[in-house]
Amino acid sequence: MNEETKKLHMSGRRKKRTPEEQAALIRRLKKAEGQIRGIQKMVEEDAYCPDILMQVTAVTSALNSFNKELLACHLRSCVSEDIRAGREEAIDELTRVLQKLMK
Amino acid sequence: MNEETKKLHMSGRRKKRTPEEQAALIRRLKKAEGQIRGIQKMVEEDAYCPDILMQVTAVTSALNSFNKELLACHLRSCVSEDIRAGREEAIDELTRVLQKLMK
Amino acid sequence: MNEETKKLHMSGRRKKRTPEEQAALIRRLKKAEGQIRGIQKMVEEDAYCPDILMQVTAVTSALNSFNKELLACHLRSCVSEDIRAGREEAIDELTRVLQKLMK
Amino acid sequence: MNEETKKLHMSGRRKKRTPEEQAALIRRLKKAEGQIRGIQKMVEEDAYCPDILMQVTAVTSALNSFNKELLACHLRSCVSEDIRAGREEAIDELTRVLQKLMK
Repeated sequence: MNEETKKLHMSGRRKKRTPEEQAALIRRLKKAEGQIRGIQKMVEEDAYCPDILMQVTAVTSALNSFNKELLACHLRSCVSEDIRAGREEAIDELTRVLQKLMK
Repeated sequence: MNEETKKLHMSGRRKKRTPEEQAALIRRLKKAEGQIRGIQKMVEEDAYCPDILMQVTAVTSALNSFNKELLACHLRSCVSEDIRAGREEAIDELTRVLQKLMK
Repeated sequence: MNEETKKLHMSGRRKKRTPEEQAALIRRLKKAEGQIRGIQKMVEEDAYCPDILMQVTAVTSALNSFNKELLACHLRSCVSEDIRAGREEAIDELTRVLQKLMK
Repeated sequence: MNEETKKLHMSGRRKKRTPEEQAALIRRLKKAEGQIRGIQKMVEEDAYCPDILMQVTAVTSALNSFNKELLACHLRSCVSEDIRAGREEAIDELTRVLQKLMK
């Protein structure tokens, strides 16, 4: 595992995804990365503030959609399995996560 | 100007920033770009969904703060100047932008 | 059941709460109702727009907190029980609800 | 002025609206108040959590739209006038308000 990202795996758990699932997640993240690089170029080209604001809003919307899908996937797989297996702490963990994701 | 980003300069206006202002904006965007690359690595390393959700939320918060500061700057410079110069359409433009940025 | 509110019970399900739980929920809603009535008085008293904006924001924050707690409670009771009882549709229902509650 | 709401007029400024504008604002607030009372009835009738969550979300959306319109109105009237009249502090005030209203 990558030394830099180690601290980001905060739960210490892993989740094996199919190659297709993994590729779909990476694709969306690469697109968001490209959008942010595009905004950097806009700043270098003296873009007007409202134009930058709109592009940044587009990235945050894309990332919020990414999160919604990832959460839906998490509920269907890990959470259901955990609860059926009697790992009740899954609900506490989900509650904590949702407090941060909700409005 | 970059061919790719041309269409992103939707207003057709430009805003000259000081080298320091420009550098500060670029720095924050590069940080967000790095965070998104970190999330890609997490996905490749089979990160647990809640860990990914938390990191994506951190990026969207950073981008929202970026937008808040950029807007504050826009209000102090362009909007004030426009209104004093009698370019009343500045208010309509700001209203449109804010409708997208508000909750 | 009240004729007016009938259509709001969209799921057709019910949830029995303890008298204490019910009283706590009602108390928070009554407080929000009082805040909204206060804002009406402000409007009648020609309040300045930013003052109204701030009070409305206070009510929406209070209602968002209300929702966060109610959701936490829902996860701990109904969702856990449903999944343990093999009612897998609980996860689909939760997913649909969360898509609306998330940013 | 009402003793209770006095402390809510935080800026100490007033804004004279036409009777039509005032009536339109009051009407929307009364609707939100009615919705919150409806949710109280739902709680008394043992409503299912997701049904309550959806209704509370409907009220917060309505209040957010109310705020967007009120802000648009504020920009067109007070803010434009203040800036033209050289009251530059209008921009600082607006900046502070927007930091709270933005995502």
